[in-house]
Amino acid sequence: MKARVHITLKSGVLDPQGKAVHNALTSLGFDGVDDVRQGKYLELDLVESDAEQARAAVEAMCTRLLANTVIEDYQIELEDG
Amino acid sequence: MKARVHITLKSGVLDPQGKAVHNALTSLGFDGVDDVRQGKYLELDLVESDAEQARAAVEAMCTRLLANTVIEDYQIELEDG
Repeated sequence: MKARVHITLKSGVLDPQGKAVHNALTSLGFDGVDDVRQGKYLELDLVESDAEQARAAVEAMCTRLLANTVIEDYQIELEDG
Repeated sequence: MKARVHITLKSGVLDPQGKAVHNALTSLGFDGVDDVRQGKYLELDLVESDAEQARAAVEAMCTRLLANTVIEDYQIELEDG
């Protein structure tokens, strides 16, 4: 089973990396951008084939290692195969 | 209009960051992980409201700045509002 995890900064948390990308886009002439937020994206190949167990495992991975839940949100999508 | 951009390493390109996450998960006792690939995730707020024009603009941003197309693939999703 495959898990796709999006880790994004909570709204209200400053995103200097997104701001830097925004500035770089503007300086390249891309004016039509109001805001940029940068997050992380992880693809995990899991041995587990049960969706519920897989989700529980990935939730534990997110809270213990992948995301800083003080300032970040995570979102998990599972996919067979 | 909102654009979500996923930038991932092409298959076959070594992913040391994903490997480091994999090792860290294993050392925390998460054994059921076969592989980890790490990518980037960007949310762009665009002024453009026409989907075709927005996609063309974000494609240009990806090829010129956001992605290194020699080793990375990008995927663009657009969303109204």
